[in-house]
Order: sequence, then structure tokens, then C-alpha cells
Amino acid sequence: MREVCIISAGIGSRWGKYNGSLIEMMSEASLEAIDDAGTDKIDAVFVANMTAGRINNQTALSSALIDYLNLFPAVGATIENGPASGATAARIGYMAVLSGLHDIVMITGGEKMRVAPNPVITDSIATILHPEAEYIHGITLPSLGALLTRLYFEKYGITSEDLARIAIKNHSNGLKNNKAHIQKKISMEEILLSQEAKNKNPVIADPLHLYDMCPITDGAASIIMCSMDKAKEISQKPLIKFAGTGQGMDTMAVHERDDPIFFKAVKDATDQALSMAGLKREDIDFAEVHDAFEILEIAQLESAGFYEFGKAHLAIRNGETEITGRFPVNTSGGLKARGHPVGATGVAQLCEIVWQLRGEAGERQISNNPKHGYAINFGGFGNNVVATILSRV
Amino acid sequence: MREVCIISAGIGSRWGKYNGSLIEMMSEASLEAIDDAGTDKIDAVFVANMTAGRINNQTALSSALIDYLNLFPAVGATIENGPASGATAARIGYMAVLSGLHDIVMITGGEKMRVAPNPVITDSIATILHPEAEYIHGITLPSLGALLTRLYFEKYGITSEDLARIAIKNHSNGLKNNKAHIQKKISMEEILLSQEAKNKNPVIADPLHLYDMCPITDGAASIIMCSMDKAKEISQKPLIKFAGTGQGMDTMAVHERDDPIFFKAVKDATDQALSMAGLKREDIDFAEVHDAFEILEIAQLESAGFYEFGKAHLAIRNGETEITGRFPVNTSGGLKARGHPVGATGVAQLCEIVWQLRGEAGERQISNNPKHGYAINFGGFGNNVVATILSRV
Repeated sequence: MREVCIISAGIGSRWGKYNGSLIEMMSEASLEAIDDAGTDKIDAVFVANMTAGRINNQTALSSALIDYLNLFPAVGATIENGPASGATAARIGYMAVLSGLHDIVMITGGEKMRVAPNPVITDSIATILHPEAEYIHGITLPSLGALLTRLYFEKYGITSEDLARIAIKNHSNGLKNNKAHIQKKISMEEILLSQEAKNKNPVIADPLHLYDMCPITDGAASIIMCSMDKAKEISQKPLIKFAGTGQGMDTMAVHERDDPIFFKAVKDATDQALSMAGLKREDIDFAEVHDAFEILEIAQLESAGFYEFGKAHLAIRNGETEITGRFPVNTSGGLKARGHPVGATGVAQLCEIVWQLRGEAGERQISNNPKHGYAINFGGFGNNVVATILSRV
Repeated sequence: MREVCIISAGIGSRWGKYNGSLIEMMSEASLEAIDDAGTDKIDAVFVANMTAGRINNQTALSSALIDYLNLFPAVGATIENGPASGATAARIGYMAVLSGLHDIVMITGGEKMRVAPNPVITDSIATILHPEAEYIHGITLPSLGALLTRLYFEKYGITSEDLARIAIKNHSNGLKNNKAHIQKKISMEEILLSQEAKNKNPVIADPLHLYDMCPITDGAASIIMCSMDKAKEISQKPLIKFAGTGQGMDTMAVHERDDPIFFKAVKDATDQALSMAGLKREDIDFAEVHDAFEILEIAQLESAGFYEFGKAHLAIRNGETEITGRFPVNTSGGLKARGHPVGATGVAQLCEIVWQLRGEAGERQISNNPKHGYAINFGGFGNNVVATILSRV
């Protein structure tokens, strides 16, 4: 089987509020990836996006991106898979190279949501949920996040302080990432303990506070993939192998699952990716996880099998998941601080892993010379999940 | 290289106005394909859709379809590529099988547009156009179709009667297709020559009349693909090889093309598909082309190189493209009569080719024992085009 590498990564403008067009924003990330790759001979472009048809009045985004960057005769398509669109597009890019149909493939994820009012954005994202059992009744992602948090509180004695610890860590990491949306140190005092905490960090969906969830962010991210042979020929950078991919599924409606605290799709995706990479959980040096809500950082680490159920919050308490810890998680700042432009997130996770594996992560570089990085991109409310493992060759 | 077959095809309910949900409609087509395949052991589902996020308040459609049909552990994603979404999804399904990552892949296209008022639908489809050079100025697909028609009228002496001839042929074919939206014979007298023609067939965008363009249709279509080896094992039907695929690109804005009458993307896609299949144009026995506007049937046959420029309308005049002619075109009824539920169209074209190659097309069966069928799925206004060739083994 052909081996496939990621030869470049780009984010473009700092994430947050972008004033240009969606295509301009995606172009900036793509150009950074093209510069990093040392080639613009792209054969195919897969764009990851979820909401542009609804929010930006634009579809057929790959056609627009190829046109804007004059990447002809590159061909393309848009891949939509809810919040897992980014890693799904990378997986399809991987198949494109593996199949031999395309040699050099660019995957660019982007979402420009902040042109719409917040309720429109929340509603647009809720369209990933079960149409009759969830969406039509007004269930949104924050309400499901709150229900999961409540379950975790009751079952494992997790507290608001535990969630705040994750937010504090991810804000601290984001402060070292000049592309992160949120670059601001926060303290337990400030968001939970002080007199002003109630105003600064109000309850949004009980028991979730504002700082327990990711912001609404405009942003893009881009990677370029090719075969290992091609990578050796064109790239001057350390080779990063696309070592494993897995995709796990579960019932769409959360209430149909046997145990809503166990994300079977996360486990299945992780098992598949590890098996393809020929690795065990203990071989993974660091992880980017999908903390759209801070409880998800705990839930994913546990469902993926990196920690036993009821233990991940203890690892977070003792600093194990800090950049300097045994198993750094979300060195980029995660969705909490880097932000969560839906289609871009899964691609940006892979960018962060590329930079860490190359030793290019600057102030937030993991020091133990990491070799294998893992990402989990969480679609639906955990019913369509993609895990990816990248390895330094 | 692994050889890939299409082992089944399904349309489900007759196209037109569907009263159930989008997922129910796609499920009906998928179940027909599953029955035809003789297996429900599907590894991956690629859904082709363009407008559901905007019109049906639903995204992550593959998750919903897999859940509804209980196809677990099948994984999936949505492929959006404007009106070429269907053939693009089939192309990605082909890559998935070719790569070895998945064995049996289902591609289901579907679009349920008729819940929205016509102006919303026209606007939703116009989101495929250049955002700053076209869309923002109110250009729609019918206005571009009218401009192209005007050019053809002036350059090649084509008349409204020529367009009507195509509509009459495609309506006649649709009358033999019990899944077609429009099953109604029309005559030149009725739509152009009679006193009442002006009322029955009004000008919509000069020189385009109502009968020169496809209707707005709800509908779905589904195919299942696997490797040739697997197909021999599980399928009792004649084997249909996915022999060639090509994707051509052009500038997004029509005014940037050297010659707006020549669709370079159609030619490039066709050249690639023929080259992959190891065939010449004269080997192709019949074609499904993307007649969203009847002028496009002429334009695509010419740009693809099946006829010289200025000649296709003569072939249509002399009956060559009838079911009984030398080179049947749109035996299904085409977009004009079968209808054009955007994401479903490219998949339905492949269904028609499968049925013709198997000799299962009933009343509309081509009699000369066809071996190679060709489809062109036209995205954007001809800037992202996918050609597919299927061959009876």
C-alpha cells in the first residue's frame, strides 16, 4: 500500500473575526500551506465546510478556491460531515492519494460564521442533530453539552473547577499560539472564585458556564498531502506520515445510546487509527482533542481509552496534560482558545500535530521529541467521529 | 490497479414532489440499490447534496441516512460540488474502493427542494456562481442559460424549434420512464406553433421558454460500488465496470473564458474519462447529458467532442439522438423530463447507464446491445464538470 505524507500546514490569518470573504480567508491558509510545501502543483483540492451555503450564500467552494488561487487544472469538491468535516476531508484526501488518482492533494477547511447573529449560528450547527428526535424540539449543541456535563458531575464527582482547569490550560496554550482566537490568560479566581466571576463567566446552559465552551470563530486551515516518494522528492521538511485514520459511528440521537457517557464512535475511530498505524495507546505522545465543550476533553480522552472512565479529570488536575506534562493535550489551545470554525477545526488539529512533530511549535513546543500525534474530530454529538494519527518518519 | 464495478442502482419513489422527509426519500432510493445489490454490508456511504443545509435545515446527511437504515458500522460524509455533486460523490466512492480503504460503497444523491418557494430555490442554486462577479449582481442559472442560448442562436443558426425538438425527445423518453418527474408527451404545435403556445410555453429569460429548461424536482438516486473481485462474488447481475472518470475545470466567472461557447471543462473531463477507459469517442454507444437547459444538450455534445461545433442540433433534427437513433442521448428523459434534484442528478445518470447496459431499461431500452455508456454532470456554469464512462464487462 502506498504511504502518504502531510508535507505542509498553514492557518493564514489569526483566527477570530475575519473581515474579508470566506474564499480570501481560505486562500490565506492555502497559500501558507503552498509556501510550506514548496510546490503549487496541486492535483486536487478538498474543501471542508459546513455552513457556507446557509450563512455565506456560497456553495461549490473548491471551484471558487481553485479559481481564486489559479490552481488550474486542480479539481475539487466540498466535504461536509458536520464538525468532523475537516478530518473527513483529510481522510478523503488520503484516499485520493492512496488510490493513485491524484498525486498532490490540498485539504483546506474554513468557516466564516461571524457574519450571522449568534442564534442563527447555533441553529445552523444544530442541523447536524437528529431532525425529528432532537433538532425540531430545539435541542442545540450547548444543551447536549450541558446534559453530558451533568452526567459526568453526578457519576464521577467532576466539578466546575475541573472544567475551569481545562479552560485555564487551553487558554494558557492559546497564549503561546499567535494564530489562536483567544490569547488571554485566565485564572480560577477570575472565572469561578471571585465576586465578579458570576458576571464574567455566567451560566449559559446549566451547569455549563461561558468559559466551559468554545467561542464562535472565523478561521481556516490547510494541509497538503502526497505519496511518501513524492514527499521525499519535493519537501525539505521532516517527513510526517499520515499513519492512521479511523472513522467511528453511533446512533444519531443521543437518547438511543446504551450509555451516553461512552462515545463508542470515539473508541472505534481510535482503535482503527491505531491498528492502521501499528501503534498502541501508550505510543501516542500527545493529542489534539475536540473540546467544543470542556467536558468533551475529558469524555474523549476516556472514550478513546487514553484514560479509564472517571480518571481523566485527575490527570488534568495533576498537570499531566499540560505542554510540560507526560501527555500534552491541546497544545494549540484547542477549540476553547484556538477557536472552532467548524470545517477548519479538524484540519487545524492536523496542522498543530505537523508543527509539533517537526519541532516548529515555538513557545508551545513539546520538549520530549514527540514522534506520534493523535487527533480526534468529533462530528454530530459523537455519532460520526474521525481519528487521525500522524508520525514523524 | 484494482478494477471497480457498480453492482446496483435505485431511484426509489417517482421523482417530482416528495411529501416525506429528505432522509426518507434518500432511504427509498438506497433500499432499492441495496435490494438490487443483494447485500447490505455497506462499508461507506457518500451522500451527494447541495442545498439541504439551507432549504431543509439538515446537515451531516450521511450520518442520518446510515442511522435511518441501520447500516452501522458504515461510515460516511456528504459531497457537495454544486450540480456535479452526484458524479463527484461517485468519483470519491470510486477512489474509496480503489484505495482499498473501503470494500463496498454506496453513493446516494438526493435533493428535496420543493418545500421552498421558487425564488429561494433559484437563489440557492445561484450560490454556485462567482460570488463577486456573478452572484452578488443577481445573475442566476437561467440568465446564464439564456445568454448561452442567444450566442448559439447567433453563431450557429440554431432556433427555438431546435430547442423544442430536444424537449420533445426528452419528454417522449421520460414517458417511458416510470420514475421520471414529467411523463407527458408534448408537440411542436403545442409548445411553439399554436395560438395557445405563448401561454403554455412563455418566455422565462429571453430567448428561453419554459420548456427549454428543466423543472424543479424532489428526488433521490443510489448506486453501490465494489471491487471487481467482490462484485463477481456477490452480484448475480451483469457486471458494470466503472471504466473511466474525468473532472474538468474552468474559470468560475463565465466572462473570463476565451470562448463562452466552448466548455473546456467538458472536453477535459471527457478526454480524461476516455483515456482511463482506453476508449475513443466512437466507442461510446449512448450518453446521459446534463440538460438543465436544452441548449446544454447541444453544448455538451459539442464541447465533449461527440459532434463538431454547430452540428449537434442537426443530429438532433435528423433523429440520431433518439432511443432508436445511432447515438441515443438522455434515454432517461434527461434533466428536462426525469427532473433535476441537484445532488441526485449525477447519480441518476449512472443508474440509467447501468440499466441500459444490463438490458433492464424496459420500454426505453436501446436495442443495439450497448456496451459503453457516458455521462456528463455539469457543475457551476461549466467550471467543475465530471464525466463518467461505464462499460459492460
